[in-house]
Amino acid sequence: MIKITLPDGSVREYQSGITPMEVAKDISEGFARNVLSAKFNNTIIETATSLTTDGNLVLYTWREDEGKKAFWHSSAHILAQALEELYPGVKLWVGPAIENGFYYDVDLGEHTLSEKDFDSIEKKMLEIARGKHDFKMRSVSKEEALSYYKGKNEYKVDLVEGLEDGTITFCDHDTFTDLCRGGHIPNTGIVKAVKIMSVAGAYYKGDENNKQLTRVYGISFPKQKDLKEYLYLLEEAKKRDHRKLGKELSLFTFSQKVGQGLPLWLPKGAALRERLEQFLKKAQKKAGYEMVVTPHIGQKELYVTSGHYAKYGEDSFQPIHTPAEGEEFLLKPMNCPHHCEIYSSEPWSYKDLPKRFAEFGTVYRYEQSGELHGLTRVRGFTQDDAHIFCTPDQLDSEFKKVIDLVLYVFGSLGFENFTAQVSVRDLENPEKYIGDPVNWEKAENAIINAAKDKGLDYVIETGEAAFYGPKLDFMVKDALGRSWQLGTIQVDYNLPERFDLTYKGSDNESHRPVMIHRAPFGSMERFIAILLEHTGGNFPLWLMPEQAIVLSISEKYEKYSEKVLNLLENNEIRALADNRNETIGKKIREAELNKFPYIIIVGEKEEETNTISVRKHGGEDLGSISISDFNKIVKEEINRTLKSFNG
Amino acid sequence: MIKITLPDGSVREYQSGITPMEVAKDISEGFARNVLSAKFNNTIIETATSLTTDGNLVLYTWREDEGKKAFWHSSAHILAQALEELYPGVKLWVGPAIENGFYYDVDLGEHTLSEKDFDSIEKKMLEIARGKHDFKMRSVSKEEALSYYKGKNEYKVDLVEGLEDGTITFCDHDTFTDLCRGGHIPNTGIVKAVKIMSVAGAYYKGDENNKQLTRVYGISFPKQKDLKEYLYLLEEAKKRDHRKLGKELSLFTFSQKVGQGLPLWLPKGAALRERLEQFLKKAQKKAGYEMVVTPHIGQKELYVTSGHYAKYGEDSFQPIHTPAEGEEFLLKPMNCPHHCEIYSSEPWSYKDLPKRFAEFGTVYRYEQSGELHGLTRVRGFTQDDAHIFCTPDQLDSEFKKVIDLVLYVFGSLGFENFTAQVSVRDLENPEKYIGDPVNWEKAENAIINAAKDKGLDYVIETGEAAFYGPKLDFMVKDALGRSWQLGTIQVDYNLPERFDLTYKGSDNESHRPVMIHRAPFGSMERFIAILLEHTGGNFPLWLMPEQAIVLSISEKYEKYSEKVLNLLENNEIRALADNRNETIGKKIREAELNKFPYIIIVGEKEEETNTISVRKHGGEDLGSISISDFNKIVKEEINRTLKSFNG
Repeated sequence: MIKITLPDGSVREYQSGITPMEVAKDISEGFARNVLSAKFNNTIIETATSLTTDGNLVLYTWREDEGKKAFWHSSAHILAQALEELYPGVKLWVGPAIENGFYYDVDLGEHTLSEKDFDSIEKKMLEIARGKHDFKMRSVSKEEALSYYKGKNEYKVDLVEGLEDGTITFCDHDTFTDLCRGGHIPNTGIVKAVKIMSVAGAYYKGDENNKQLTRVYGISFPKQKDLKEYLYLLEEAKKRDHRKLGKELSLFTFSQKVGQGLPLWLPKGAALRERLEQFLKKAQKKAGYEMVVTPHIGQKELYVTSGHYAKYGEDSFQPIHTPAEGEEFLLKPMNCPHHCEIYSSEPWSYKDLPKRFAEFGTVYRYEQSGELHGLTRVRGFTQDDAHIFCTPDQLDSEFKKVIDLVLYVFGSLGFENFTAQVSVRDLENPEKYIGDPVNWEKAENAIINAAKDKGLDYVIETGEAAFYGPKLDFMVKDALGRSWQLGTIQVDYNLPERFDLTYKGSDNESHRPVMIHRAPFGSMERFIAILLEHTGGNFPLWLMPEQAIVLSISEKYEKYSEKVLNLLENNEIRALADNRNETIGKKIREAELNKFPYIIIVGEKEEETNTISVRKHGGEDLGSISISDFNKIVKEEINRTLKSFNG
Repeated sequence: MIKITLPDGSVREYQSGITPMEVAKDISEGFARNVLSAKFNNTIIETATSLTTDGNLVLYTWREDEGKKAFWHSSAHILAQALEELYPGVKLWVGPAIENGFYYDVDLGEHTLSEKDFDSIEKKMLEIARGKHDFKMRSVSKEEALSYYKGKNEYKVDLVEGLEDGTITFCDHDTFTDLCRGGHIPNTGIVKAVKIMSVAGAYYKGDENNKQLTRVYGISFPKQKDLKEYLYLLEEAKKRDHRKLGKELSLFTFSQKVGQGLPLWLPKGAALRERLEQFLKKAQKKAGYEMVVTPHIGQKELYVTSGHYAKYGEDSFQPIHTPAEGEEFLLKPMNCPHHCEIYSSEPWSYKDLPKRFAEFGTVYRYEQSGELHGLTRVRGFTQDDAHIFCTPDQLDSEFKKVIDLVLYVFGSLGFENFTAQVSVRDLENPEKYIGDPVNWEKAENAIINAAKDKGLDYVIETGEAAFYGPKLDFMVKDALGRSWQLGTIQVDYNLPERFDLTYKGSDNESHRPVMIHRAPFGSMERFIAILLEHTGGNFPLWLMPEQAIVLSISEKYEKYSEKVLNLLENNEIRALADNRNETIGKKIREAELNKFPYIIIVGEKEEETNTISVRKHGGEDLGSISISDFNKIVKEEINRTLKSFNG
């Protein structure tokens, strides 16, 4: 008998030789039908592998990344078989699962592949899948493995030669055999939908001096419906690409002359930023923050003191020298050292704390040009930064207040789906962190307490803490189900030491304050990128640069259009008028493209009855209504998203 | 007979040999009594010099800088005589007039000088002055001059040796003779008040390897009352020194670790900045500006294109290198290149112009540490910058609109006393300027027209234009009568060329836009410094970070105090409460020091009658009034300064 421990801590006893699938069935037949893969004592195994010792067993379904990985890795085997059958003589190299799907690198020999061939590959794969062939692992000696491939596939021969005898396994299914470390779903029949996405060139071993192989990308799902949804989201994501929307909505641009990775904010984008900044400033004021302004450079010594230079100095923008006097400055990669200097410009008593210094501080960090991507990976960005200096006793309540602020920000911007990640030390590598372990533990506990208290859905990630302290990151799911890291709250026991920050306690002695770094948006650039992709440019009404556009049916109604515009302005509704001599159809189309939330049409009927005809973005017709009714509709919509915040 | 042309263009005929003083008397005896000095055909002369040719004569009084210069230069002669008489054996070197007064550098020999000696020097100077001795110039040969000083004063010998024979003059008055180029008042009797200000060490010829002489600083006036006023203003200026006030009011600080010349804005200062920025943003929005946001660095090539690198590159902050890829960036010394790139990111038609891009753009310029001074001379500062791109036809009207905006800013901030300076090319040095001379002339005329049209009190300064275009600067007089340059409007025909900026004209052809740079504040740093010195920290009410403070007479009235604070907040009056357990006297004193415009006191009587007792900063008692009456008083005061602006 062996003892199998499940993730919930329960222990079950079985006869030695039982398989994970049998354990799954023992738990529930329904559950077993969904099991794709398994992990035993931290090793990925097949669901048909016999278990012969005590150990921890995890069973994976499609819902877990590990389940998907097995699914897609297995699908790569099916793809390989399909390619061999369709294109005799092709030579396989490797075929891993990737973030979305899988690929296989093959030497096609005399064959070529293009989009028109995808359909027949998919058909062949589904035909194989329908055969419900089991994936079966078997050990082979190095000699066997070599003789299997010798003369047929030099790539696999090379792979086998790099392996140690005794560790080599093959996987068989149907008539197909592949060199493989394992990690498959039970059988091919589980694969119900496949799509070949693209082909690309890929150098053998990634070396451009080697032969170029063909990389065939595919994706597969357990249900046809899942594939449909995936392809829809893919199409949506393309439409919502913030780089595309940023151009269409004239929000930002890049200039090769100014430099890559350095966005230039156009008027509409700058107005959007300003609105977001004012929104946060207002909330922060209520929450007791004080704004400060600090320069974008600092002496190199400042970052030597803070420890940032040792950590980042050589890989970042290099020091700025002065023509005389031999001074050295750095573009600031962080605002914290500056805020520490503001803190230490005055003596503080425990009665003054917490001090909460906030700044929309633009920082600069070097990224290789290949790493740059739109607004999500840039070389200069503005953090909605703040540093809270508090007593150790205040850490708990301050952390909770910050969470309140972050949740207010998410709520007002339509991010309803999020989880939290608490990043703590890797206790096995203490040398990676600066500061006192006792303080680290205090801080980690404060964060976990706050997350619990606020009812967050959180996970603890060991070893993910920054070198200077543990942190809480929010992971937000956008409208397309993609995850983004947004909103960081970080405890820091280190900088107060390095800057020798103090306050006078009630005991009249000098004490060390604790510091919290936090940024609900993260950075204006990245946040706006995510907001664009989340909303497709249809921001919450309170945030839209223009909330409505007034279209006159013809030039005759320009005067009434201007009157309406004025009334809207009096009601503090941001609007524009389009009185161009164009057809109303064209004006409506353009207004739709430009994402105006409300399109107001005025002509003879409206002027006579002193009304406006209103349609919402997307087409919903609200009919002819009075301006005061329209004002109510707008105010109600704003109140639905932009909730009140009491700090 | 000779013809003398006066500054008003009138021509008078006199016998050859007539003196400037005789001409003055011929104009008016009263005027002549005030004449201190004269300029004939662009050479400064004595008022007793005989005129023997036709020419242009300017007569100077105390009101002109030239008059003051002659007065203070002559006073230096009197100081020198006094020192020789009081301290026999002293050796004089040089004694010029300076911006405020004069000094004389002397080798005191065995004597020493300290503050306690100032009184006797002043007495001796006034005794000499009362003798009404004429200042008389005479030519001497180099030989005569050398023999006069040889063996007595090696410094003067050295001076004489550097002069060309035939150009050497002495000036005599009373028993005193000095080597001198001329430019004196008629006689010593005009000097009615003198004050020795300080003594300092000064190396002979400014070389620290030479002997250290004693520099005696003094100032003198034609009336005792003027001296009194000067000393009062000097005392006031010390009190209003923005560096002192900035510390007292906790507005900003500097950190040696961050770097000299890089201000850190503390919460109260940042709030002040924000209020000023929002004030200007609101006005700019009305005036059709659009905000943009650009990075604080740009590729070196950008500034090579703009011409800034050639002009400033080597003397400024040096390029920032990247760890790989060999890119070079510069801290931006100007925002214009970035705004040019924004302009050129889209095609424009003449119908789209003018485009007015505004940014509170922080720029960095290297200054030697010795040049740095508080907020007026810094290494990083935020310009309230904007660039207007318009057609040549729009230049006139755009320039006028900018003047309107600047005047609105001055009016709302209490600067009532200002003149304008139009800086044009020096036509004799055309190589100093880039761009087409035809365009330069157009631009210069546009500025002068706008200045005339807006009724500005302006002067034209030849040769003061920037290398890339003519400009208009405002010179503002502050409450202590000091002049500050504030608000620059600059035409630029050059950058549009260099960046190849275009728009499509009504003729469907490509045309070059004109650019206007403008900054009503100049920079936030310098403007706030000047505003502090102008107002002594008592800003216009609309701008004050806190408009009122509520002081509770004792802790018993804390609740009522909070109620009052709430009501003030509802009326949008920014206020704080001081409910500390301190005497009301101490609270009032602190509130006065912190410049709260209104001090509200609440105790038993106020709580019973639901009123507040109000005193203005400075002590004026407004008695017990209702909150709604107080609200009216505040709103009226705000409306007096913050006028409406319609763009």
